[in-house]
Amino acid sequence: MKSLKELILSSGISPEKEKEFIKSIRKIKIKKGTLLQMKGDVNNKSYFVCSGMLRSYTIDAKGKEHVFMFAPEGWIIGDFQTYNNEIPTELFIDALEDSEIEVIDSKNLQEVDDLPQESLVKQVNLLSKRVGVLQNRILMLMSATALERYQEFLKTYPNISQRVPQKLIASYLGITPEALSKIRRQMVK
Amino acid sequence: MKSLKELILSSGISPEKEKEFIKSIRKIKIKKGTLLQMKGDVNNKSYFVCSGMLRSYTIDAKGKEHVFMFAPEGWIIGDFQTYNNEIPTELFIDALEDSEIEVIDSKNLQEVDDLPQESLVKQVNLLSKRVGVLQNRILMLMSATALERYQEFLKTYPNISQRVPQKLIASYLGITPEALSKIRRQMVK
Repeated sequence: MKSLKELILSSGISPEKEKEFIKSIRKIKIKKGTLLQMKGDVNNKSYFVCSGMLRSYTIDAKGKEHVFMFAPEGWIIGDFQTYNNEIPTELFIDALEDSEIEVIDSKNLQEVDDLPQESLVKQVNLLSKRVGVLQNRILMLMSATALERYQEFLKTYPNISQRVPQKLIASYLGITPEALSKIRRQMVK
Repeated sequence: MKSLKELILSSGISPEKEKEFIKSIRKIKIKKGTLLQMKGDVNNKSYFVCSGMLRSYTIDAKGKEHVFMFAPEGWIIGDFQTYNNEIPTELFIDALEDSEIEVIDSKNLQEVDDLPQESLVKQVNLLSKRVGVLQNRILMLMSATALERYQEFLKTYPNISQRVPQKLIASYLGITPEALSKIRRQMVK
């Protein structure tokens, strides 16, 4: 998938709805480091990454950052937690590289009432898959070794381990950068 | 909701499908401690809890248990991760109390292709909510203090904190039983 438009065209929504939806997409170029969303924001957007990379993260009470997810080309990033209930988001989203992205109002992604059967089936399957991925992440955070977590990261993001700073990968894994270096050395052997 | 039948009757599936589905439900009584599912099982079931309580958990390489979720009355428990792709489950499921439960083949829950519009919309909304809950759990595990995690637990499970052994709540929160005792004493003050 190379753009949101492509996703929409394959979703089977009505031509009127399709036009409206496509009109609501804004394509923008942003510089590395641009902050797109802050904790506390309401009415959030979702971002489709055409090129470059975004990430979402949270900051704990001690000021430490924790990476929630990376979004390289072809990924959508946003805060599902706040879609339905208009509560403020917990997540910051920023650009790890100069990026070209498409911006949509998250609400538009959730207006499912008048979608056709076929498109809803796709959504149910996509969401079920997402539930599985998140469940897996929780089990990993609770009980997997650092090595297992890193192997899972490589499976989820096959092509970004050389593009992302070590300390951000370590943050995603919930381990120290030193522990990550050690694992990488072990894997080379 | 008091039974799966009620859930199905409100889902708007066709009368034929409904009959088939209801016929596939088995209602059973199990004793505290009964193991319903083990790591490595394929073709998994989902369990609707009519009375009592189930829990799902994982065991790490060192033999330590980590509680993934509790399922008191009215909850459904199963392994979403394995629904779509018939991979072996990571989760154990057992009974924390004598329980009355309804058992369904997880696959039946995922046969969405011939569900009517209305029912699919409900599923999309339920799954979106579930994605939000799981996201929140991940953020909590990564960055929240033990106190914040416990408060979130009380919100998610308002009526079980006196029914579940302390060490299992601590395991769910990813903290030691001693840390949990300390938090509880703080909250009483």
